[in-house]
Amino acid sequence: MKETKPYRIAIIDLGSNTARLVLYSAIPGYSYRFEDGVREVVRLRQGLTTDGLSSEAITRAFSTLRLFKRFCDSAAVDGIIAVATSAVRDAANGELFIEQIRREIGLSLRILDGEREAYYATIGVLNEVPMENGFVLDIGGGSLQISEVRGGRFYRGTSLPIGSLALTERFILTDPITEEEFARLRLEVDTALSAIPWLKNKKNGILVGLGGTIRTLGRMDVARTGYPLQTLHGYRLTRASIEETVSLLRTMTLKERQKIRGLKTDRADITFSGAVAVQILMEQLDLDDLTISTAGLREGLFLERFWQHLPYPVIPDVKRFGVLNLARTYQYEKPHANHVRYLAERMFQQLTPLHGFGLPEWELLDAAALLHDVGRVIGYGRHHRHSQTLIEYNGLVGFSPRETALIALLVRYHRRGRPDIAAYQPLINDADTALLLQLSAILRMAEFLERGRNAAIDDVIVTWTDSDIRLTLIADEYPAVELWETERNAVPLFEEAFERSVLLDSIAAPSSWPSG
Amino acid sequence: MKETKPYRIAIIDLGSNTARLVLYSAIPGYSYRFEDGVREVVRLRQGLTTDGLSSEAITRAFSTLRLFKRFCDSAAVDGIIAVATSAVRDAANGELFIEQIRREIGLSLRILDGEREAYYATIGVLNEVPMENGFVLDIGGGSLQISEVRGGRFYRGTSLPIGSLALTERFILTDPITEEEFARLRLEVDTALSAIPWLKNKKNGILVGLGGTIRTLGRMDVARTGYPLQTLHGYRLTRASIEETVSLLRTMTLKERQKIRGLKTDRADITFSGAVAVQILMEQLDLDDLTISTAGLREGLFLERFWQHLPYPVIPDVKRFGVLNLARTYQYEKPHANHVRYLAERMFQQLTPLHGFGLPEWELLDAAALLHDVGRVIGYGRHHRHSQTLIEYNGLVGFSPRETALIALLVRYHRRGRPDIAAYQPLINDADTALLLQLSAILRMAEFLERGRNAAIDDVIVTWTDSDIRLTLIADEYPAVELWETERNAVPLFEEAFERSVLLDSIAAPSSWPSG
Repeated sequence: MKETKPYRIAIIDLGSNTARLVLYSAIPGYSYRFEDGVREVVRLRQGLTTDGLSSEAITRAFSTLRLFKRFCDSAAVDGIIAVATSAVRDAANGELFIEQIRREIGLSLRILDGEREAYYATIGVLNEVPMENGFVLDIGGGSLQISEVRGGRFYRGTSLPIGSLALTERFILTDPITEEEFARLRLEVDTALSAIPWLKNKKNGILVGLGGTIRTLGRMDVARTGYPLQTLHGYRLTRASIEETVSLLRTMTLKERQKIRGLKTDRADITFSGAVAVQILMEQLDLDDLTISTAGLREGLFLERFWQHLPYPVIPDVKRFGVLNLARTYQYEKPHANHVRYLAERMFQQLTPLHGFGLPEWELLDAAALLHDVGRVIGYGRHHRHSQTLIEYNGLVGFSPRETALIALLVRYHRRGRPDIAAYQPLINDADTALLLQLSAILRMAEFLERGRNAAIDDVIVTWTDSDIRLTLIADEYPAVELWETERNAVPLFEEAFERSVLLDSIAAPSSWPSG
Repeated sequence: MKETKPYRIAIIDLGSNTARLVLYSAIPGYSYRFEDGVREVVRLRQGLTTDGLSSEAITRAFSTLRLFKRFCDSAAVDGIIAVATSAVRDAANGELFIEQIRREIGLSLRILDGEREAYYATIGVLNEVPMENGFVLDIGGGSLQISEVRGGRFYRGTSLPIGSLALTERFILTDPITEEEFARLRLEVDTALSAIPWLKNKKNGILVGLGGTIRTLGRMDVARTGYPLQTLHGYRLTRASIEETVSLLRTMTLKERQKIRGLKTDRADITFSGAVAVQILMEQLDLDDLTISTAGLREGLFLERFWQHLPYPVIPDVKRFGVLNLARTYQYEKPHANHVRYLAERMFQQLTPLHGFGLPEWELLDAAALLHDVGRVIGYGRHHRHSQTLIEYNGLVGFSPRETALIALLVRYHRRGRPDIAAYQPLINDADTALLLQLSAILRMAEFLERGRNAAIDDVIVTWTDSDIRLTLIADEYPAVELWETERNAVPLFEEAFERSVLLDSIAAPSSWPSG
């Protein structure tokens, strides 16, 4: 058995425009959380010539990296993973610069080549968005990385010097952009992407997008259409929406763009070029939407370390680990959560002929059972609402926004209240009403059958007629608390959901065989 | 040095109408939290005659207490404190009943006499609402307890059989109530309260109210006027508001009452009598408002155990313990919080000639400094907002609602954003704008001067002219991270708040004397 110790690790990412430092704390293989982050606009690419990085850019980078190093020292990190991307790799003096940093600051930066940069972004994505085959698009300031995923692994990838800042600087010289500039911008992106031969093997698969530009496109879409969750993770961005954004921004001046909801002032100028690049890629791939990932390069770098005991640094079951990571972060009461999950599963399975649901719905109930009490980290009172808030805030990796909303509602209604979809419309709609009602009824029943929080009920046997459902509880001794609480708190919803009266009975089955 | 072990304790309270079980977990003398709770309507007083409790009532109580006992066993509690109040103490067969419970269930209930019941409610209140002198009013279903507090301690108290349920049953026989019934109800309450001689020694002091009826009156007031916090703790309920409620309910039928916002359906009938009792008491005491306490009998019973190492079971500094208990519950990072608090204090003190504030304002800044990061228990991203939410949800014992709102805003703005009072109007208003701005500026400065979270800055010396403020930082070595982060993130707000430019300089003062 491998034993591991908790650690705190810093990831430093020196990009073309921005330098970032993030801290993660981790219990290896068990749980991790984002702990702290700083960013500084270094504009490393500014003044880059054939001689290499400009001395002003080098000075700015030095002062920032020196601060990052001190920050890591203060935080007493157990390790630093530091990388530099396109600006440094493209610069003639890049190696020299890295050597100087190592010597003077004591910080070892690895220069990532384009493929490696694409690889790490993909590792970040694969740990957040389950995908077998498809493409990952990472738009940065200086470069754009595109990767192909096959069989759930990074298959190949490359980097092109058409990041949103780079495109803006090269092509958008007039405000608003002229017809001619726009045509040249499109041509440049189209040509660059067309040069990648494997983009032409269109497979069935999805496109996942990440980076500031794509998150901005997501936020603009949210501002237009409304969206009830607090994280963009898993957000589905349609080609139609991106086309709308492109035509909206196309004739606007910079000043006008800065007033758009969802578009941060300091992103108003570069978002347009990035949007054009996404649009063209989607045209080439003939895909109608992309899924936003909030994870990328830095997460990939961290997760390679975190999953070092696995043969490949991607957790096979993204959804399950995401649920457990959240539960562990909030110090869930494992035996209780597991027992509620177990009882819910027993009822869900036996009731299949009545509800007709399968694995996809069970996954929702399963996640909700494990997470129903996480809100107790905030306080006992109204903890069902706190659990809901924690799911809204964190999102659930691997689950779609609709599924996330359903799980949030299941935990919301695990103790009381009449399940109501209103809070998450239009993400979920009337078609989900029966699903929510029946799963809520099962979860609430499981919760109250485990009201004593001590696994008093060994098993539940479900039988029914047209008019009633009988739940026969097997327990070591008469489960008085559970019967009492269940009758008052869980039976009414269950009766409504399955349109039958509920009969509760119990068998006290001492867990020992007769002696002699 | 006394050493103590964490424990979980159950409090059982068998009232006239309701039986309640609550669980607390505690690290003695350090922190406690409410963990779980169940309640059951037992209606113990129903059918009470001169012979005593009815056999139906006894049966109901037995089955509930048996369940409570099992619940305690499941939860593996380290102790049970169980009491019975007015119904049992008034019953001729009360002692017998208690003995039977002890024998058959193994649960020892203590019958509290009226004075003792008043005492525990007061102990609960005094740990939540700091008061030197005044009165505590606890309206239950069967009885009403009134206590006098002198010198911050329970001085005397008594119980009267005029709880809101008892009054309703005796006097309100018609729906809506007739003039005559109303007159008899008033007369009964007035006579009963007039019989307490010490209610006539009106001292300067406050009135604190607790119990379901008073919380209902609070919720009705909130529904009328709007209130931005989520807890009623510390809510100021005016006599005018209670008078309004009495005249509102007076001519309504039960059906009409059930539609009132803030009035729960199952409280619609008994709230009126309780409101009349509160109104008459306020008239007799000639007081214009009462402060709501969310703590009472059960908290008093628990806190007597929790504070058993103190000579008197009330924490002398309610506010400070409340802040620390919250911080400890959410596992705050103590060294960082303490250092931010220290730097904030140093600046607050030295800047006194500029801001003109004193101890009351310092208490707000102090609390905010200790609590600013508690939201990290939820997650790093937007943790300033999470901290605010946790304060809104829990409230802050000892602080007024206005102070609580100010502290919530201070933590909200500790990292970024332009402080804005809008969220808590009308609780705080334009008159607090300058206060909020200046305290926020100091807190944010302290936070970024401690950005490395390792107490790099030993001290800060503040000097100023009419045009600028100089902050001289004393540190072991050049505080690069702090200067950098402070300049970008804390200086702008500070300059606005104190209408001067900020100059940052630093003295590297190694903390060792020259050798030899």
